[in-house]
Amino acid sequence: MMRGMMMDRPMLVSSVIDYAAEVFPQVEVVSNTVEGGIHRYGYAQARERIGRLANALVGLGVKPGDRVATLAWNGYRHFELYFAIAGIGAVCHTINPRLFPEQITYIANHAEDTALFFDLTFLPLVEKVAPTLKTIKTYALLTDRAHMPASSTLPGLLCYEGLLSEMDAAFTWPEFDENAACALCYTSGTTGEPKGVLYSNRSMMMHTFCLIASRPDLFAYNKRILPVVPLFHANAWSLPYVTPVTGCPFILPGAKLDGATLWELMENEGVDAGWGVPTVWLGLIDEFKKRGRKPKNLKQILSGGSAVPQAMIDTLTRDWDIEVTHGWGMTEMSPIGTITLFRPDEQKLQPLERAKLSALQGRRMFGVDLKIVTEKGEIAPRDGETSGELFVRGPAVTSGYYNNAEATKKQMDAEGWFGTGDVAKVTPDGWLVIVDRTKDLVKSGGEWISSIDVENAALAVKGIANCAVIGVPHPKWNERPLLVVVKAPGAEPTKQEIMDVLGSKIAKWQMPDDVVFVDALPMTATGKISKKDLRSKFADFKLPDMAGG
Amino acid sequence: MMRGMMMDRPMLVSSVIDYAAEVFPQVEVVSNTVEGGIHRYGYAQARERIGRLANALVGLGVKPGDRVATLAWNGYRHFELYFAIAGIGAVCHTINPRLFPEQITYIANHAEDTALFFDLTFLPLVEKVAPTLKTIKTYALLTDRAHMPASSTLPGLLCYEGLLSEMDAAFTWPEFDENAACALCYTSGTTGEPKGVLYSNRSMMMHTFCLIASRPDLFAYNKRILPVVPLFHANAWSLPYVTPVTGCPFILPGAKLDGATLWELMENEGVDAGWGVPTVWLGLIDEFKKRGRKPKNLKQILSGGSAVPQAMIDTLTRDWDIEVTHGWGMTEMSPIGTITLFRPDEQKLQPLERAKLSALQGRRMFGVDLKIVTEKGEIAPRDGETSGELFVRGPAVTSGYYNNAEATKKQMDAEGWFGTGDVAKVTPDGWLVIVDRTKDLVKSGGEWISSIDVENAALAVKGIANCAVIGVPHPKWNERPLLVVVKAPGAEPTKQEIMDVLGSKIAKWQMPDDVVFVDALPMTATGKISKKDLRSKFADFKLPDMAGG
Repeated sequence: MMRGMMMDRPMLVSSVIDYAAEVFPQVEVVSNTVEGGIHRYGYAQARERIGRLANALVGLGVKPGDRVATLAWNGYRHFELYFAIAGIGAVCHTINPRLFPEQITYIANHAEDTALFFDLTFLPLVEKVAPTLKTIKTYALLTDRAHMPASSTLPGLLCYEGLLSEMDAAFTWPEFDENAACALCYTSGTTGEPKGVLYSNRSMMMHTFCLIASRPDLFAYNKRILPVVPLFHANAWSLPYVTPVTGCPFILPGAKLDGATLWELMENEGVDAGWGVPTVWLGLIDEFKKRGRKPKNLKQILSGGSAVPQAMIDTLTRDWDIEVTHGWGMTEMSPIGTITLFRPDEQKLQPLERAKLSALQGRRMFGVDLKIVTEKGEIAPRDGETSGELFVRGPAVTSGYYNNAEATKKQMDAEGWFGTGDVAKVTPDGWLVIVDRTKDLVKSGGEWISSIDVENAALAVKGIANCAVIGVPHPKWNERPLLVVVKAPGAEPTKQEIMDVLGSKIAKWQMPDDVVFVDALPMTATGKISKKDLRSKFADFKLPDMAGG
Repeated sequence: MMRGMMMDRPMLVSSVIDYAAEVFPQVEVVSNTVEGGIHRYGYAQARERIGRLANALVGLGVKPGDRVATLAWNGYRHFELYFAIAGIGAVCHTINPRLFPEQITYIANHAEDTALFFDLTFLPLVEKVAPTLKTIKTYALLTDRAHMPASSTLPGLLCYEGLLSEMDAAFTWPEFDENAACALCYTSGTTGEPKGVLYSNRSMMMHTFCLIASRPDLFAYNKRILPVVPLFHANAWSLPYVTPVTGCPFILPGAKLDGATLWELMENEGVDAGWGVPTVWLGLIDEFKKRGRKPKNLKQILSGGSAVPQAMIDTLTRDWDIEVTHGWGMTEMSPIGTITLFRPDEQKLQPLERAKLSALQGRRMFGVDLKIVTEKGEIAPRDGETSGELFVRGPAVTSGYYNNAEATKKQMDAEGWFGTGDVAKVTPDGWLVIVDRTKDLVKSGGEWISSIDVENAALAVKGIANCAVIGVPHPKWNERPLLVVVKAPGAEPTKQEIMDVLGSKIAKWQMPDDVVFVDALPMTATGKISKKDLRSKFADFKLPDMAGG
């Protein structure tokens, strides 16, 4: 090998905020605050406050490599923490506040966090769990002095704004190895304890670059971007880095993510694109209907986290002139793996034709390698038929879980690829189709039934607001599908109506053996339907003898 | 430091062509061929042929680290060489065919090239210099069997298409350190021997990523891009990597770069954007005028290599509805350092207002650090006034010249920044303004006069096609400016008319002491005005006593 003669400069996330401050000083970060009202400033002012925060962190004794935790919504102070913590070489550990308190305790202790910065909303939660947190020495409330509580059980509780006001804004970032960790996020698996994904400066920059390179149009001309996806969830799909680099305004929605609040914010801030999970878009679409229009500038919705039903994509496309981009990924992938990505000939299709392609999970993002391994251990051909477990590889994919050799071992194959736990296939045109989570497949006799396929068919039935398919034990077939339905408000679909519609959409052997109605589906802390909870609820469910393979 | 737990995957340029072949298999590379006629294929077929070429190179004994030279225009075979050579871990050494034969000999021997691939055009040139080339064992002509010469003085001359036809298309790229060299390009300085810049896989990918991240709009929606900038010149500004990653069609113009040929190709291929040096655009604008219109889809011109005069930008903007993006860079920077980059408020300006900003050299690209050092050795403030020598730093900036410690020493400062040899300033808004090349400044008494400022003022005079300002010795002032003018066809501007116009645009002490008319200006091999040649031509010129400081 001959080594090139180019400068050996590390890729550090701190360079992102310095660039934005210099090149896009007035481009705004807008936040719907927890305290009430809108906060806005430019990237230059953000950098100034990030400098103050960096000085404060150093003053508090935070050292390179230390884990500093956050429990916070999408707001400017959370954004500041991202850069100040990573900038000094420490690790920004974003904790999902929707987890059970016991999980938060487990995660903070496992990560050995030394400090915790949290929003006002979470003061009661933090006061409750604090006695169980073994390593946290510093508690800081993300608010100003006026909103500080008169008293708190938390030892030496700091006021974020008070802290910053005492500090100097000047702070020159240290330079260090780009492989240094910059962020940590635990993924709450449906089995076992949460597992930590430890991102590096390099991996974060690579994900940022690869996302922009794969879909430059999403960031062209300083698009006004609103991440509904939380900053505590897989780096908010790396948007906190992508928007400053590309000079896009960043609109942070705070704690309230209902349709009405989102609609108002999008309207007032001229948001071009919203990024988030499908559940959120359901609420927003309801608001479109109530008001008879969408927010004036909204043109794009980026949806990930779980599969977007075709019906939702069609509605957004046809009724609201919104283009839906679908992404698939995992916390372990920083998180995006595949994304809706059209070829020039597909660009020319009618919107509703393109919408059909948007229902697929997308094509691989540059920098992500995909490998599908069949049950026989063979590499699946890209025929749109053969499915198997999906493995991934790339510079922004985890090489193992933080301090968890056992979980790491389960997930990595002999060649160093990461096993996603998803069953998938790839079409000859290169579209990834997620068939199901391995553990959510209904194993009926020798056949696998995709719960997602049946759910998508059922969601097209009028009067169904939401649904889930799980396998329940069956004496002859091992498992058979059960459809669990939440009715839309005011609607009264019957079992027979649903079965009739399904019968025209899916094969007989895929048909659910029964339909049950519930008021609501159990959800995980990350906003997905908890099939684990559903399965345990219906473990003893007696299927009628009305169907079968 | 705590190390992140992410996969250690190298950034290799071979991943670019594999991605394009898979995700954009039918997106076209279109070439105006040397043999005549248009050649077109998709990225998938390109990858297939690149696989054959890689097998051929290995068969010819090319080893990792070996330098493989090219003498070729912008065509698909040159594009193939880029990827096949770098893909096997060797170094693609693009030689500028416009250099003097002695320079080509110097460069090929200095690089110790082991093979040379060249276009038909250059057969006589290669036959002439071959006896002086000490290390080249393999000569291959970039053509098919039908176009091979009946005989040649070159030992064992190979036919490129013959070579490929015998090879297998399957070739899996080896994985190696991303710091491995992938390309080599000599910059023909205006003083001394040419100096080699040795790019690495990492630096090339970083430049690619940073360009896309800085101007995503340029590559959004699969824009049809035509590089007039040669593949033998600083990686054609990294377009051979940017276009496959972003799925942009790549239109290669071959050997003929006159206005009429370019116009036809742009029209027929629906080119959206042309990238090249200002001289080329002069010819193209003439063609617009002749035909009364521009090629139907042409919307953008990217201009770099030398400063673009305001008058040209205004014409393109006002008369032809073409947006001009201005870039500044150097071979040593892979090559882009700054680029026209608008803030949201500037995006909203009228086109002719934006055009004023496009005449500046642009804002720094993400990943490029700028430092301006005054004569006193101080860092210049960003006040738009204080100028000094421009230093640069970044992961795609050279750390030294290949096998040339002496030249390296001259160019790098104590902190590891690269000295560009340009005198520059930065406005408070972050726009870089190149005042002049250090050596092109006219040193008049204690003042510096920017030759570029005077030239830009003169180019606005009706009847001036091109011009250059050089300093000529003056007994009192040390140097004084001389304006050398090429008249436009049919125009007869007088010395007095020119001086009158200049008098209204620049200060008295900047006024040239004399004006001389020439038929043509001497050009360098890279298409820039050779001030070195002009200075030696006019070294003994007697200035009249009509002006002075």
